[in-house]
Amino acid sequence: MAKLGDNLRTNGDRLWDSLMDMAKIGPGVAGGNNRQTVTDADGEGRRLFQKWCEDAGMTMGVDQMGTMFARREGTDPDALPVYVGSHLDTQPTGGKYDGVLGVLGGLELVRTLNDLGIRTRHPIVVTNWTNEEGTRFAPAMLASGVFIGEHDLDWAYERTDAKGLKFGDELERIGWKGDEQVGQRKMKAFFELHIEQGPILEAEGKDIGVVTHGQGLRWIECTITGKESHTGSTPMPMRKNAGRGLAQVTELVHEIAMKYQPTAVGAIGHIDVYPNSRNVIPGKVVFTIDFRSPILDSLQKMEAELLERAPQVCEALGLTFAHKSSGQFDPPEFDKGCVAAVRNAAERLGYSHRDIVSGAGHDACWINKVAPTAMVMCPCVDGLSHHEAEDITKEWAAAGADVLLHAVLETAEIVE
Amino acid sequence: MAKLGDNLRTNGDRLWDSLMDMAKIGPGVAGGNNRQTVTDADGEGRRLFQKWCEDAGMTMGVDQMGTMFARREGTDPDALPVYVGSHLDTQPTGGKYDGVLGVLGGLELVRTLNDLGIRTRHPIVVTNWTNEEGTRFAPAMLASGVFIGEHDLDWAYERTDAKGLKFGDELERIGWKGDEQVGQRKMKAFFELHIEQGPILEAEGKDIGVVTHGQGLRWIECTITGKESHTGSTPMPMRKNAGRGLAQVTELVHEIAMKYQPTAVGAIGHIDVYPNSRNVIPGKVVFTIDFRSPILDSLQKMEAELLERAPQVCEALGLTFAHKSSGQFDPPEFDKGCVAAVRNAAERLGYSHRDIVSGAGHDACWINKVAPTAMVMCPCVDGLSHHEAEDITKEWAAAGADVLLHAVLETAEIVE
Repeated sequence: MAKLGDNLRTNGDRLWDSLMDMAKIGPGVAGGNNRQTVTDADGEGRRLFQKWCEDAGMTMGVDQMGTMFARREGTDPDALPVYVGSHLDTQPTGGKYDGVLGVLGGLELVRTLNDLGIRTRHPIVVTNWTNEEGTRFAPAMLASGVFIGEHDLDWAYERTDAKGLKFGDELERIGWKGDEQVGQRKMKAFFELHIEQGPILEAEGKDIGVVTHGQGLRWIECTITGKESHTGSTPMPMRKNAGRGLAQVTELVHEIAMKYQPTAVGAIGHIDVYPNSRNVIPGKVVFTIDFRSPILDSLQKMEAELLERAPQVCEALGLTFAHKSSGQFDPPEFDKGCVAAVRNAAERLGYSHRDIVSGAGHDACWINKVAPTAMVMCPCVDGLSHHEAEDITKEWAAAGADVLLHAVLETAEIVE
Repeated sequence: MAKLGDNLRTNGDRLWDSLMDMAKIGPGVAGGNNRQTVTDADGEGRRLFQKWCEDAGMTMGVDQMGTMFARREGTDPDALPVYVGSHLDTQPTGGKYDGVLGVLGGLELVRTLNDLGIRTRHPIVVTNWTNEEGTRFAPAMLASGVFIGEHDLDWAYERTDAKGLKFGDELERIGWKGDEQVGQRKMKAFFELHIEQGPILEAEGKDIGVVTHGQGLRWIECTITGKESHTGSTPMPMRKNAGRGLAQVTELVHEIAMKYQPTAVGAIGHIDVYPNSRNVIPGKVVFTIDFRSPILDSLQKMEAELLERAPQVCEALGLTFAHKSSGQFDPPEFDKGCVAAVRNAAERLGYSHRDIVSGAGHDACWINKVAPTAMVMCPCVDGLSHHEAEDITKEWAAAGADVLLHAVLETAEIVE
């Protein structure tokens, strides 16, 4: 008879092997992964995950956004399922663990229950959310955003990548556009295990981060327009160099974020220069500002100051500034009951832990709007993520999966 | 009997029609051209030019760099040819005249001589230099650089574009790698007609620029390295944002160029950000600084100050700075005799003119090192070039071709 005791643990070796097997699909150029959403590599990763789920006795549902839901039945036909999961897609130069750990940690949880013959009253569903990263098709967390009604399905399908390809077409091309209507599923709870993607847990020697809040986010896509002209024959006073606008706004973003320390952050990660030729003064620069804070007021003030000052900076250089939102959400506060289940699990298992704010956006931040939600974090080496050198230890992964197992079992109810 | 009188003029309508016909090949997206070097479009443009040359009774030679030499025989078998020409390749978002006017102006000159039955003692060779622009394969003026021995042929062949394709392979692929050894031709003189690519002639209402000097150039390819990390979960003090290095060096380039006014210029036209994702702090930025001045001392001081201060700027941000030269030449002074031939021609034809410095680099700047050389410039609207909206009038083009005709005839000697 299974009990929620400190000896109930996942199989860390098996979890690690699965992580390594998945990492073989869509290898990067420097030891990490390039398995961007709705690419051929993503399709191959999905097929492997599906096979593993079916081998573990689960049944797979796929919705119209391509999100995969692998279900392990419970004993009560009327009980709402407990959902776990994250995403299998990666950054173009991403790591092996960001997202993947949360999906395969959920799979390992089910495999462990199978090994031990543990049944739960509530079904358990392991989820792979489509396009969490948002690099190829902005915004990030696209499928979970559609799931909660933040975005329309048709709008999501129309998102284009840098080559002009549409998300909906690419999803269909790789064969993962399902029939199930998006967002119809009801959840008892949602738990997401994820690497921290920051340096705090490792620096403090903690095994587990109990995520109480997430950072809110504002993505502001900016277009600065000047005038293309020859770098050699245009006298300095006659130039309208959009590159200088980018330079000054880059420093402005930094200056503004520094006013709201220690929690706020701000940077520009994506920049396209037009026509991007060595001997042409940039006539146009398009870039996205990423502001985040767990404090809504800070987030709003940062955005407001940027939108007031950036046009002034550009005007002084003879440039024009335009902007649009390309992603935003307010800081989420996770469900106190689910957070307590995570904290209890870490305590019960004897793992050192601390409460933490999630610096990154996650599918859990959206799902938190429609279901009781919490997140479990494990450390990552040097805080490095969205980088091919992203790294964790087998022990950290196993501890995260153990905590996920206990939090889910406390919620899904072991059947005696 | 032809004489070098003010009634001896090219056919401006025919020149204009040829310019418009060539512009149909490799059309841009906004009315200009995208006929980048050694692309399929370049190959098609070359075939049209070859046909026109053969129709005009010229014979075509092609060297191992793909440079085309269309020869009209002279009466003296021992006389060195007078060369004219420029380039048919364009920027990715280029205009219809940059380079093309100089090649087709040379063709028009020959057609005019044919119309009038004028023979010259020296042969006349109309030249299309391969890869003047240097956008797809740096450095600019690649073929003329190999011609004068500034670059090795094999080195030129190994230049790669953004996709990793090699110049030599692409030249062969489009079928324009000739057998003729590069640089073997001896020239009596070289004349290049080109649009100004700057605002001076139009602003002063001059028909013709008599180019006495060119600007020297330093292209410095810089790599700033920081650390890729997540935009959300990396605290501000722990960031190594290569984008901030780019920002501060952009402003540094401007500041340095402003010290050497009114002749010097400086800007950054080409920027690649890695990994260029909205939610990843740039770990690396690669960009090229373009400094120019007609005064060698200014050019050297600008480069030296940049290379002293940019590493300091980066170090203060926790970044590293590396650089290499990706193109350089010292300010050329054109041949006094050839310059006088251009000035005489403008005088004789009654065109208003002024001496001018070429702001851009041109094949003539390289050829000036091995043969007496001069350039003729005509105005362009609003100084705009390297831009699809680049524009000139039919009258400006015709005046330029007329001056080219007279300068060449004065040098090639009309046979009575």
